[in-house]
Amino acid sequence: MRPRLGHIQFLNCLPLYYGLVKNDVLLDVELVKAAPRDLTGMLLDGELDIAPIPAIEYARHADDLVLLPDIAISSDGEVQSILLLSKVPVEGLDGRLVALTNTSRTSQVLTRVLLARHWGVFPEYVEMPPDIGQMMRDADAALLIGDDALRAYWDPPADLEIYDLGAEWTAWTDLPMVYAVWAVRREFAEKRPDAVSNVAEALNGSLAYCRAHLEDISDYAARWESFPSAQFLSYFDTLQFRFEPRYREGLTRYLTEAVAVDELDDVPAIRIFGEE
Amino acid sequence: MRPRLGHIQFLNCLPLYYGLVKNDVLLDVELVKAAPRDLTGMLLDGELDIAPIPAIEYARHADDLVLLPDIAISSDGEVQSILLLSKVPVEGLDGRLVALTNTSRTSQVLTRVLLARHWGVFPEYVEMPPDIGQMMRDADAALLIGDDALRAYWDPPADLEIYDLGAEWTAWTDLPMVYAVWAVRREFAEKRPDAVSNVAEALNGSLAYCRAHLEDISDYAARWESFPSAQFLSYFDTLQFRFEPRYREGLTRYLTEAVAVDELDDVPAIRIFGEE
Repeated sequence: MRPRLGHIQFLNCLPLYYGLVKNDVLLDVELVKAAPRDLTGMLLDGELDIAPIPAIEYARHADDLVLLPDIAISSDGEVQSILLLSKVPVEGLDGRLVALTNTSRTSQVLTRVLLARHWGVFPEYVEMPPDIGQMMRDADAALLIGDDALRAYWDPPADLEIYDLGAEWTAWTDLPMVYAVWAVRREFAEKRPDAVSNVAEALNGSLAYCRAHLEDISDYAARWESFPSAQFLSYFDTLQFRFEPRYREGLTRYLTEAVAVDELDDVPAIRIFGEE
Repeated sequence: MRPRLGHIQFLNCLPLYYGLVKNDVLLDVELVKAAPRDLTGMLLDGELDIAPIPAIEYARHADDLVLLPDIAISSDGEVQSILLLSKVPVEGLDGRLVALTNTSRTSQVLTRVLLARHWGVFPEYVEMPPDIGQMMRDADAALLIGDDALRAYWDPPADLEIYDLGAEWTAWTDLPMVYAVWAVRREFAEKRPDAVSNVAEALNGSLAYCRAHLEDISDYAARWESFPSAQFLSYFDTLQFRFEPRYREGLTRYLTEAVAVDELDDVPAIRIFGEE
């Protein structure tokens, strides 16, 4: 049976998908599209063998998982697609209400970390669907991610402060931020190490293809989405898919901060496939 | 939005899938994998725009659908993967019990048509999961399709008569048999004719690719399935993806026979995209 690889149909995974198609990888893996929030459960339940999952979810289930060594969804500075929009400068959010999009796990925790640990402010939080109008009616600030965030980044609403949380993280820690990792069910990694190696190689090949064809990919994205190609190019160029040592250090720092704000019990040892 | 194209993960669609991957078509369509039994409903409900559906299901909903002109799953003679296995020669099945796999619609009706109209025998029928052991314990004959049928075709169980229903159909009618057609929701075809044309072209290109690379595809199939490449080559070579006039005539004859055995109310006018 072909390894079952989870896939998110978000813009941040589009360059990788493009590389997977162009490299014929879809003959060697069973690609299973799912909502990000479902992937971790599907992986743990054995419905998937390998999947991109939120960094914070990985940490909560690290005992049952190992990570692919060379791929993540990460940023080193600006990220463009994870934004805090606020009616007042963040320093003024103490005791106010912040709306968190219910489409994200890692970014919700990142918001709490930056507000509490970097800016030293302690708002109340409410989780909501990503409707900026509703969020700003109910709260004083809103976390948006993905397409909703890009729309705000590219066409900023007047009268709102906009914080790029990737840029804020790196300015504060001098480290990259890792949003998602490619996790393998540990049992699968032990039973079929060759299949995992093949998938890892196929993903690396697809990433190499995608890095070499960012303009084509941006033109492709612009065909199906309502932004011009140049904006996609800027976004895809900003987005990193790296997971080299400095990025892993960024992940560990993030998890340490997540413990500090009570969003994680402890920082797990990060197990990398092939490096144990 | 990319057109949403239904896809069956059956061996009979594997050559086409191979062509779709090799021709990068998966960048231009949203491929939605589903069980064959679900595709018709998903198409009618608007969850899919275009899908391969059983010929008999098409006929039951023809008012809401149009067909792509150049693609079907069909045979002209032997098909290998749709078999009636019987403890006695078919002529002896009058009044006996025939088990029909619950994984097929068109082939169930084909079985009834051939038994009643070609062989003039009138058994009782029972629908069951495709477990040949259970079927042959409970009944005197069993309809199998797909992998289960191929297994029986390539490694015939002793003491059973084996009838290839594609071969029997063509021997009787002198016409090809059409098992599945690519149907477009009519509303979608009217609203987005260019998208339908693009998908039709992409499918034709993928079929041309697949016809030119049957050996590669057979080697590929043999990597993931437990039969040797040569058997896949024989099967893929037998299987037709044609829907030219003689095949359409075969479809009409099949639907006429389905009416004769009370499995269809009437033979609909067959509407082909771009030919109205």
